[in-house]
Amino acid sequence: MRIGICGYGNIGRAVEDKVLESQHQLVGIFTRRQGVQSIRGTKVIAYDKMPEFEGKIDVMLMCGGSQEDLLWQSPEALKYFDIIDTFDTHARIQEHASNLENVANLFGHRAIYSCGWDPGVFSLMRCLSASIFHEKPETFWGKGVSQGHSEALRNIRGIADAIEFTVPCERVLERVKTEKGYHPDDNLKHERHCYIALDQTRPETEVIEEIKSTENYFKDQQVFVNVVSLNRVQQLKGKMYHKGYVFAGDAEASMTLEAKMDSNPAFTAKIMLAYANALSHLPSGAYSVLDVPVAMLEEKKWL
Amino acid sequence: MRIGICGYGNIGRAVEDKVLESQHQLVGIFTRRQGVQSIRGTKVIAYDKMPEFEGKIDVMLMCGGSQEDLLWQSPEALKYFDIIDTFDTHARIQEHASNLENVANLFGHRAIYSCGWDPGVFSLMRCLSASIFHEKPETFWGKGVSQGHSEALRNIRGIADAIEFTVPCERVLERVKTEKGYHPDDNLKHERHCYIALDQTRPETEVIEEIKSTENYFKDQQVFVNVVSLNRVQQLKGKMYHKGYVFAGDAEASMTLEAKMDSNPAFTAKIMLAYANALSHLPSGAYSVLDVPVAMLEEKKWL
Repeated sequence: MRIGICGYGNIGRAVEDKVLESQHQLVGIFTRRQGVQSIRGTKVIAYDKMPEFEGKIDVMLMCGGSQEDLLWQSPEALKYFDIIDTFDTHARIQEHASNLENVANLFGHRAIYSCGWDPGVFSLMRCLSASIFHEKPETFWGKGVSQGHSEALRNIRGIADAIEFTVPCERVLERVKTEKGYHPDDNLKHERHCYIALDQTRPETEVIEEIKSTENYFKDQQVFVNVVSLNRVQQLKGKMYHKGYVFAGDAEASMTLEAKMDSNPAFTAKIMLAYANALSHLPSGAYSVLDVPVAMLEEKKWL
Repeated sequence: MRIGICGYGNIGRAVEDKVLESQHQLVGIFTRRQGVQSIRGTKVIAYDKMPEFEGKIDVMLMCGGSQEDLLWQSPEALKYFDIIDTFDTHARIQEHASNLENVANLFGHRAIYSCGWDPGVFSLMRCLSASIFHEKPETFWGKGVSQGHSEALRNIRGIADAIEFTVPCERVLERVKTEKGYHPDDNLKHERHCYIALDQTRPETEVIEEIKSTENYFKDQQVFVNVVSLNRVQQLKGKMYHKGYVFAGDAEASMTLEAKMDSNPAFTAKIMLAYANALSHLPSGAYSVLDVPVAMLEEKKWL
């Protein structure tokens, strides 16, 4: 496959590493930012030049942020290429999917959206479990950095840089593990630990208030804000480990999926590349991980 | 759905329970044996009458054994209905699948084969993991009763009744959990504990020798045979709990799926019913669990 990367943040850099380790060809990294250089020496290309690569790239791996980039970049790239993105704003996935479906059908391309570990592999396990057990599966994340929540913080005016650690409430997790039929309120399951460095353009109290009222990310959650130095945020950004669980079952049986990773972006990149194998088997359209038979990912049958 | 059950052993009885708890209609239980009565009062119908139910049953859930029944019963039932089976002789799945594919295409029906927890849900996790990590996933079963291995024992001349407990080697399991890149020899991973009652038509040593040379089930495995009374086998048959793990990962990340069940047949029955939801969405043909998008099992999106 001839692969392009769009966006060169944490995920873009991890995808670059994985593509270079693979048998695929990496054509270039597309970015809107000036002066970006690839760590691994890949050609960096201006975002606006994308249309010129139609027919020269088979799949564009969309590595922008969900809040600001993917909602418009994914449909745009889909005009020229098959794409995979990791769109993770749960509340807006259906809207994003139907935009992609329209473009895919108009231009005869394929998109796999929300393709990471969650949403993605964890969604697949939730769907499968729910149909087997007729009970709501319970998901826990962390301890680890949520890229989506960190990006949501960085998009708030007054914040120079930030990182968020999602921490499961041990007491609630233990009850879900051991008590059949217990389904806690979603907002009780995790704590959101935010480390922010301010740029001094806004009072701290105002910034914190905006964090705590950010819909889909922090509102109604157990949020702890720590104001720290830019250096401290940089330091914490080195820690990209993460973890997660899907618990599912009923009185007779249970299934638990546990994922652990040293690097969240590296794991996400591997999943994107696995699903890239499926693209050529699919008719044009927009697909979630739930819509793709896993047999399309692998030549070997694992029955 | 109008459902039929073919075969009334452990799985057949568990499927009967689950169908009666569901919104589906249970038309009848088909069996070759004389004088079978349903525990739950379902109509019992002679196996040979199956063709008369064409158009009156939407899906036949095939609950016979893999060694003796499913290889010929599944293709036969598929002439009249969509079917789901739990064929679990790993070494013969491809042959079984291509037989089903031929019949499915001739008669315009759909089959989902090898649809249980393993093969089935565990196969799905192995395939997904292998494509993400490029490392062989490792599966462990037990401690629990293997229905396939117990049936293989019962099919040996000289054995009146039998049950097999699969027990993972704790030392090997621990190394797989903790040591990245360790892939033990398959025959070292489990112990096969067989409890057999003899019918006195053959010398014990001859029977044990035949067990230890049974291809695909016991040959080259760590087999322990205990000759016990019929009563003791009956007693042990009450214990249908089981457990299993799929471990997958590389140096950077890992995923573990763990399944635990009080009743192996009940869990298998639930999985068969979950996949029955997919049948009406599929074109005619034969499918493994790997070929079926999980979105077809559930109306709710679990992204």
